[in-house]
Amino acid sequence: MIKIGVITASDRASKGIYEDISGVAIQDTMKDYLKNEFEIVYRCVPDEQDVLENTMKDLCDKEGCCLVITTGGTGPALRDVTPEATENVCQKMMPGFGELMRQVSLQYVPTAILSRQTAGVRGSSLIINLPGKPKSIRECLDAVFPAVPYCIDLIEGPYIQTNEEVIKVFRPKAK
Amino acid sequence: MIKIGVITASDRASKGIYEDISGVAIQDTMKDYLKNEFEIVYRCVPDEQDVLENTMKDLCDKEGCCLVITTGGTGPALRDVTPEATENVCQKMMPGFGELMRQVSLQYVPTAILSRQTAGVRGSSLIINLPGKPKSIRECLDAVFPAVPYCIDLIEGPYIQTNEEVIKVFRPKAK
Amino acid sequence: MIKIGVITASDRASKGIYEDISGVAIQDTMKDYLKNEFEIVYRCVPDEQDVLENTMKDLCDKEGCCLVITTGGTGPALRDVTPEATENVCQKMMPGFGELMRQVSLQYVPTAILSRQTAGVRGSSLIINLPGKPKSIRECLDAVFPAVPYCIDLIEGPYIQTNEEVIKVFRPKAK
Repeated sequence: MIKIGVITASDRASKGIYEDISGVAIQDTMKDYLKNEFEIVYRCVPDEQDVLENTMKDLCDKEGCCLVITTGGTGPALRDVTPEATENVCQKMMPGFGELMRQVSLQYVPTAILSRQTAGVRGSSLIINLPGKPKSIRECLDAVFPAVPYCIDLIEGPYIQTNEEVIKVFRPKAK
Repeated sequence: MIKIGVITASDRASKGIYEDISGVAIQDTMKDYLKNEFEIVYRCVPDEQDVLENTMKDLCDKEGCCLVITTGGTGPALRDVTPEATENVCQKMMPGFGELMRQVSLQYVPTAILSRQTAGVRGSSLIINLPGKPKSIRECLDAVFPAVPYCIDLIEGPYIQTNEEVIKVFRPKAK
Repeated sequence: MIKIGVITASDRASKGIYEDISGVAIQDTMKDYLKNEFEIVYRCVPDEQDVLENTMKDLCDKEGCCLVITTGGTGPALRDVTPEATENVCQKMMPGFGELMRQVSLQYVPTAILSRQTAGVRGSSLIINLPGKPKSIRECLDAVFPAVPYCIDLIEGPYIQTNEEVIKVFRPKAK
């Protein structure tokens, strides 16, 4: 059984001021995508860098999530610190994820360039930042997810299979 | 009255060896774009990293510019240090600006990939690097400016309005 | 006579377990592209960050290569450390190279976003990372090479000329 972490970074959602629609959207997308049995480990935390870092470490190292998807905290505001937290806990950064997601979001809104979202590897876990807006969750995941299972193969995580009619993954043939 | 900083980084222009056409082009573009009353705070400095950093700090912190636009010093040459100066004075970097500007410039010249321009946030000020060539000033600003007023809202700067027939800005609706 | 460095980062190729097709592909591409007389300085090394850094320094500083092209070690796996080595030995990073190469590779495979390849300047040498797959060597070089000779002009390397019917280089006119 694989585990997937979902972290919502939001001062207001973590206080219960509004419902965490984005965190739910990630979970729904995983149900659509994945053929493997899986368990979601969900956390909703305030936009505090140390809290975010500890939550990421916990989901990767203790919970053993092969994939941790965050939403929120990627903008330019003072309290937007999710990319910084991600960079601090990852051994390797993967700039291609942020580049592609911004490019896809640019087709919808010119403010896509304000999103500082990135991705990186911590041990055998891949951490991906998504923006906070519920609408962009699916757009971004549809763009990057075809590369996710092969990435997790390369970092020695579990073998992920998807519902091919929903999302097609790509694994290059060995040399 | 809002203030906008314009910094030209150029050894030769700062010595008066040639006219600073790019700095003028930025000012002209602002006049075209903005509906707010505004004042330009203009500096033309040599390509010295400490001078650039001090000038950026001065325009953000003392002059209170909500937006500082630089031109020049973004290439690969030894004395091109504007992106390094920007990174040193900013609390948050915004990679989407550089990505989009390079993509737009690539439609005109393959050497667009040599431009290392970026953008970042210092306090309540947004700093944007543009390349040095006068021709690319308008191309780059047309590409990124639709996202600039909302970015400045998010960092708690003034409310910027544009002449919509010249450039359309985008502000997403609140959740 | 100009010198061009080629570094293959591969644990298996460096042990002779398989042939280094990618390193050969880079050399063949240079023969196709270049009008200058040139010498290839070739090294095939394991994916060890300190070995890679020392090899890069050696090719730039002692051998005097104006261009060093690496292949391999750009993925997310634990032993993929070529971008980190590149960043450690360069004074300036050039994000536009990686962005463009990933964008081009994305036209072929969605896993292009997993490649962390970059480029940077060390003294008067340009270092460019290519992915490890032989098939992507030519795709990536065709995309970025039009900007390479002008980049090398700007960092005060030799004047590179190409076979214009194979690849067209671009040098902007001086201001």
